[in-house]
Amino acid sequence: MRIVLVAPRNPLNIGAAARAMSNFGFFHLRVVNPYELAFREARSAIGAEPLLAQAEEFKTVAEAVEDCTLVVGTTSVGPRQLQHPIRRLEQAASVIHKRLAASRVALLFGSEKRGLSNEDLSHCHWLLRIPTREEHRSMNLGQAVAVCLYELARNPQAVPKPEKHLAATAAELERLTALLLEALRSSGYLKSSPGGSQKKRSAAPTEEKIRRLVRRLHLSATDAELTLGILRQIFWKLGSTKVPPAQD
Amino acid sequence: MRIVLVAPRNPLNIGAAARAMSNFGFFHLRVVNPYELAFREARSAIGAEPLLAQAEEFKTVAEAVEDCTLVVGTTSVGPRQLQHPIRRLEQAASVIHKRLAASRVALLFGSEKRGLSNEDLSHCHWLLRIPTREEHRSMNLGQAVAVCLYELARNPQAVPKPEKHLAATAAELERLTALLLEALRSSGYLKSSPGGSQKKRSAAPTEEKIRRLVRRLHLSATDAELTLGILRQIFWKLGSTKVPPAQD
Repeated sequence: MRIVLVAPRNPLNIGAAARAMSNFGFFHLRVVNPYELAFREARSAIGAEPLLAQAEEFKTVAEAVEDCTLVVGTTSVGPRQLQHPIRRLEQAASVIHKRLAASRVALLFGSEKRGLSNEDLSHCHWLLRIPTREEHRSMNLGQAVAVCLYELARNPQAVPKPEKHLAATAAELERLTALLLEALRSSGYLKSSPGGSQKKRSAAPTEEKIRRLVRRLHLSATDAELTLGILRQIFWKLGSTKVPPAQD
Repeated sequence: MRIVLVAPRNPLNIGAAARAMSNFGFFHLRVVNPYELAFREARSAIGAEPLLAQAEEFKTVAEAVEDCTLVVGTTSVGPRQLQHPIRRLEQAASVIHKRLAASRVALLFGSEKRGLSNEDLSHCHWLLRIPTREEHRSMNLGQAVAVCLYELARNPQAVPKPEKHLAATAAELERLTALLLEALRSSGYLKSSPGGSQKKRSAAPTEEKIRRLVRRLHLSATDAELTLGILRQIFWKLGSTKVPPAQD
């Protein structure tokens, strides 16, 4: 994959493009007729200084894409004004992927002000458009590069599922529930004592409510342990109320 | 969707974030403690000047996310160093989509130098990671915003299904956290008093641990209310320990 910046004006954008390339694992930067010749010192290439130092410079688009079998231009313009076939970034990325297996592909970005000229576009097989809002299509150059390379690097098949935390067992949840209920009785939230059968009946719906609440939390084993520790401390404190504790 | 920039240093990055938001159709920018107060004039917000002018400013993360039921932090750090569950951008976007059908979601970006602090992260339900190369994870702020919003805007066909339970807002969760922390201080689980600055430092990680725990529970609004009631009763009881209660 060759990332080709055509007539970029602002060295900060070149540096930002280099940084995004390094972020997403693309290492071959080509620059055609940069406005600022000292672009290699761009401070914005944080972590991508070697990549920027190794960027290749060309006088013409033709030379910059010579060794590629597929040349894709980027554009913010809608399909009506253009002669080229146009693909949305996502579809474009999948076509580019296939080609990259066999040969080199160039992805062209135009200058900040005007984008790619008709002459530049004439070197392209087709165009790619980032799906921005109709009302505000024009993106910052460094951001456009970042978004394209994110899409190219993203491999839908390779997306791992988030690690499921080891869930707490029913036994752990029941220990937690029992301790919480005891704390609630101590604190007066639950009115009945466990022995009083008359009062117990009226407390049962509240107990079930608490038990359901604990289950709804979907606690991991670690969080169940943490919560048990908290409750034990609170319960111990509630139980020790006969002797007024020392005040801090 | 609320895009929240926490302690951003460079106004050009704030402007770039605003531009990407406008490109991809997100209009609510929030800024917490910006380093440069005159960020609203950032030249980089090309085409997004009104959006930047309407950005809301906040002193704390808690205030900036108050009305949101899901708070997602962005990070470039790998899962090993972090206490939070972490999702790749793609999966994160699909979860965020679903939540957005029913309520507000905040997406947090940290400062250019350090990212989100542990205190910032403790307000988050979970974290999102852009799938960059292991060897070069740290992205430019404006580019990171652009990539995240591209992914969120990318699939407009995805029909979000409303969630079953109305989730608790960040404000409700923070009230719950504050009360729980008070109860833990009263019970001696947390050693420090709020005033003691020396002890306070050592208590901060535990406080953040508790705040993360509360976020991991994914409480519904009703369960948050129920839990608050429980805690109030326990806290009241803990506070009334000077006078030994009558024994049943």
